[in-house]
Amino acid sequence: MPDLQPNSEDLRVKLVISYDGTNYLGWQRQRLHRETIQETLENSLKKLFGRPVLLHGSGRTDTGVHAWAQVAHFDPPSSIERIHIIKAINRFSPQDIVVQEAYLAPREFHSLHSAVGKLYRYRILNRPYRCPLRRAYTTWIPQPLDLERLQEFATHLQGEHDFKSFQSAGSNVKSTVRTLFSASWQRIGSDEIHFLVHGSGFLKQMVRNLVGTMVALTLRKEPPRRLTEILLALDRREALKSAPPQGLVLERVYYSPELDKKCRKLYE
Amino acid sequence: MPDLQPNSEDLRVKLVISYDGTNYLGWQRQRLHRETIQETLENSLKKLFGRPVLLHGSGRTDTGVHAWAQVAHFDPPSSIERIHIIKAINRFSPQDIVVQEAYLAPREFHSLHSAVGKLYRYRILNRPYRCPLRRAYTTWIPQPLDLERLQEFATHLQGEHDFKSFQSAGSNVKSTVRTLFSASWQRIGSDEIHFLVHGSGFLKQMVRNLVGTMVALTLRKEPPRRLTEILLALDRREALKSAPPQGLVLERVYYSPELDKKCRKLYE
Repeated sequence: MPDLQPNSEDLRVKLVISYDGTNYLGWQRQRLHRETIQETLENSLKKLFGRPVLLHGSGRTDTGVHAWAQVAHFDPPSSIERIHIIKAINRFSPQDIVVQEAYLAPREFHSLHSAVGKLYRYRILNRPYRCPLRRAYTTWIPQPLDLERLQEFATHLQGEHDFKSFQSAGSNVKSTVRTLFSASWQRIGSDEIHFLVHGSGFLKQMVRNLVGTMVALTLRKEPPRRLTEILLALDRREALKSAPPQGLVLERVYYSPELDKKCRKLYE
Repeated sequence: MPDLQPNSEDLRVKLVISYDGTNYLGWQRQRLHRETIQETLENSLKKLFGRPVLLHGSGRTDTGVHAWAQVAHFDPPSSIERIHIIKAINRFSPQDIVVQEAYLAPREFHSLHSAVGKLYRYRILNRPYRCPLRRAYTTWIPQPLDLERLQEFATHLQGEHDFKSFQSAGSNVKSTVRTLFSASWQRIGSDEIHFLVHGSGFLKQMVRNLVGTMVALTLRKEPPRRLTEILLALDRREALKSAPPQGLVLERVYYSPELDKKCRKLYE
């Protein structure tokens, strides 16, 4: 057990959280107490500490989108010296939301503002008929997909671009410029094709809009420049339809190595 | 479209079926119309043909157990010349039951009596905390499992044995002797351990009883001969607890190469 400073103003806890988004209206707390991941976890923290605790996530995930390692932080309102924080939160939470890791973080750590990148995975099931065992975690496309063509499109996305064409309505960010450090399609097993994308940040439904567009262009056998044209148009109406949410997983949120070093794992 | 002989007495259809067993009381039709895979599919066939159709499975799977490739057959009561049988059955079925393949089979083919072997997979999630994305398809064991020890136990199970100690109550088979052609544990990815077992046939809950016993013996660091003692005792009370159903998947049912050759794929 690390030596914590109970009630210290410096106390901040970083959590790594997995969730099945199927039954939630996304991460972000909403008015009218709809079912969201954030509110569910805040309720667990409230039960644990006996008073309201704000939980800050690294960003929203949409309705139905999953996470393998979403990051969030909170400042405990009282000593956590005697609490196995992971087990305690999980005990108060439903089985589709599970804390995997907990760290004692410095006060400068902020799950959203300190994030320097995110890794998303989009899983497509590419076989003639549906798979009942993967129906909640993949998007089924029966037409055979040309992996090489998909990869050509993905290559054109890498680097710094204005991704305005791939931002869904209802967002209010200052800049729509983002950097994709890597974007690649991979065949996984005999019948899955995954899109893995690591970027500095992502606009609203950007991954799903990119996947939906790349898949549509591939099925139509369009040339790679077609994607560049859509990108340069800076107009959402140019992008093709958005891929459904259940295939998307937030796989990792990155912070600087310096900040990672200052976070101390609370439990194995 | 193959040239079928409509209304011929020789017409038999072999189906390969995937299902998520979570919401079903197993394969086998029951009195009082409880939710089973067999009854659900027979209802689909009834809608398709306008009259009752019997569907014969290769064997039962228990409540909550999944299948990637269960095999079943039926004799269509009318011509199927103009029916895309896979799409038609799937259209009438819920999304957790999906026909993957359909064959025109000779009348000598019988999903149960012709079967010469089955392959089962049991998935254990071996990590400190649960994974919400795999909770319906794995059994969570937080204590680190010794793969080598598990494999030593499995090696002792291979070959022909009387598996009476691993048969759950409520079964009425003539012989409890079965042959395991292979039985092995594998590490899959960073946090899963799978038991793959290919046998001539399996007794009631045999795979789950074998897995539950091997895992318990491994956690207690028992020597390999302990499993042999349990096997030789021919007494169910000697075996340790049964592993839960959601980790189990029926992966394949085998028939003789001669019979496979006589089955003609109806659709890709």
